[in-house]
Amino acid sequence: MSQKRVGNFSIKFDNPPSIIGAATIAGTKEAEGRLASYFDQTLKDERFGEESWEKAESKMQKTVLQNAVAKSGLSLNNLDFIFAGDLLNQCTASHYGIRESSRPFLGLYGACSTMAESLLIGAMTIDGGFADHVACMTSSHFCGAEKQFRLPLEYGGQRSPTAQWTVTGAGCAILAAQGDGPYITGITPGRIVDMGISDASNMGAAMAPAAYDTISNHLADNNLSPDYYDLIITGDLALIGSKIVRDMFFKDGIDLSSHYNDCGNIIFFNEEQDTHAGGSGCGCSAVVFCSYLLEKMKQGEINRLLFIGTGALQSPGALTQGESIPGIAHAVSVQRSLLS
Amino acid sequence: MSQKRVGNFSIKFDNPPSIIGAATIAGTKEAEGRLASYFDQTLKDERFGEESWEKAESKMQKTVLQNAVAKSGLSLNNLDFIFAGDLLNQCTASHYGIRESSRPFLGLYGACSTMAESLLIGAMTIDGGFADHVACMTSSHFCGAEKQFRLPLEYGGQRSPTAQWTVTGAGCAILAAQGDGPYITGITPGRIVDMGISDASNMGAAMAPAAYDTISNHLADNNLSPDYYDLIITGDLALIGSKIVRDMFFKDGIDLSSHYNDCGNIIFFNEEQDTHAGGSGCGCSAVVFCSYLLEKMKQGEINRLLFIGTGALQSPGALTQGESIPGIAHAVSVQRSLLS
Repeated sequence: MSQKRVGNFSIKFDNPPSIIGAATIAGTKEAEGRLASYFDQTLKDERFGEESWEKAESKMQKTVLQNAVAKSGLSLNNLDFIFAGDLLNQCTASHYGIRESSRPFLGLYGACSTMAESLLIGAMTIDGGFADHVACMTSSHFCGAEKQFRLPLEYGGQRSPTAQWTVTGAGCAILAAQGDGPYITGITPGRIVDMGISDASNMGAAMAPAAYDTISNHLADNNLSPDYYDLIITGDLALIGSKIVRDMFFKDGIDLSSHYNDCGNIIFFNEEQDTHAGGSGCGCSAVVFCSYLLEKMKQGEINRLLFIGTGALQSPGALTQGESIPGIAHAVSVQRSLLS
Repeated sequence: MSQKRVGNFSIKFDNPPSIIGAATIAGTKEAEGRLASYFDQTLKDERFGEESWEKAESKMQKTVLQNAVAKSGLSLNNLDFIFAGDLLNQCTASHYGIRESSRPFLGLYGACSTMAESLLIGAMTIDGGFADHVACMTSSHFCGAEKQFRLPLEYGGQRSPTAQWTVTGAGCAILAAQGDGPYITGITPGRIVDMGISDASNMGAAMAPAAYDTISNHLADNNLSPDYYDLIITGDLALIGSKIVRDMFFKDGIDLSSHYNDCGNIIFFNEEQDTHAGGSGCGCSAVVFCSYLLEKMKQGEINRLLFIGTGALQSPGALTQGESIPGIAHAVSVQRSLLS
């Protein structure tokens, strides 16, 4: 048994990779949300000067990759790997966004868990001695996601109260073998959990049991209680999913109380912005992690963070064939300092 | 600079992971092809007893995962990670195939390069000390792929001479920290290369420049000539793409001659089976690698193998928006013995 493994599922790094830079870009609605001031850049229109939403999303990835590399004091040629994926069929936002980078690229598909998945694999490549610098990136686009996963916007469909609002945004973080932190100290990769939810407008409920599974495994493997972390934050469970997670832990006699929140709960002013249950999408956890959360760590307001990317492995094709929505969640433990 | 890195792009493992078992399943047309006798199992009908092609493909992944684990003398619980992906939108074959495994899962999207991508990442997690056993898996299905990427079969569309035949098949390989080989000794991850091909029926041409780039990088980084390998084999360039690769090397003064072939060239009897340029799809390289190639290594007919997964990062949506097809290729160096 490898000494880096902890418990049944988790891994602790010998040489925790440092997050040396990050960049974000967000859409027009996000620019009017709670976290607007934290984003590097916001769009004036959802097309970002391109002819389609999909091309706009590619340009967002290209932009944050360049900006994150520059903010890290590097050039693209310093990257040993780019790990990226997105929600579009065949991950087109990533492929066309990265096409001209000329750097080794490994494509991921973790639905909305992709930011955490990219950090998790990226951190392993650095701690394992396979890379000195890697980029971890993802994105989503409200218009492209609605068209592909639910209904074209032009239909003007009603949104149910459980529906979430896919964030238009992209985030990129650069990990390095050397740096001043924050550091990725450990990971807990997730298992697929499917409790039978088949409503594409209730993704929070579909993902919540997977988040509970991964957080439980992380705490048990590392023998921690939730208050070890200043914040345990899931990616895009939003109001309904995050309440389910709280309830599931409550049944175990664990009160997550103020130690827990969800990126989908804090990105929008839900009532004023009519975003129903809250934010979702790969871009939700990506822009919240790569801007707000890293900034709070830099300021010392958060010293220990457990970041859990949550993915609804939803497929319109599978749903029409009577399938339910499998969920997955990957956890990344981030610490401001290695001394604490 | 990490000591595991070699040259600009490649990695050499300190403790090369061993491939301790593998399993394959293939479709009805493959059962009449050149390599039929090497597959563990072939289908009697393309539905595999399911109601849809997509569900059949999921069942194929579920089946090869179970069989590969059993052939390795393990149980599912021994797997620290499953790395998998496929060609269906949202990688549904993998998600529904793995859903009940209850093991940590990291989803990949590398189009037809996924078998090599999963081996490449899986090998890093083992050499890096993050895992003792991992499963690397992918699949494709002719009917599902045609429906999604080109035309529904019911249209009875004409196939052009450059068209390839997507293999119906799934392959799974189990890597372990300890074992008797063959061993994954090194990797060369690929970059996206896009030379402007936009014909979805000419994937070989779209992928060939990426394969050339990765093979060239691998040979240069490791200071090798092609004859170091008993066989350099690409995943699914088939007749047209593999000829382009030969031509590109020939312009560099390098004659690949009998050291080079392509999985898409050897899986079917192309003329008799009317498969035009040859085989393609994630399943093509997966079933050829996990059956024929590993068997030839076991028999000592191949001692040093360079296996290159080739992916056309094609998206029907992007093509309708006027885009070309980006290609990618990932190389995995496999040796029968660590003494040679």
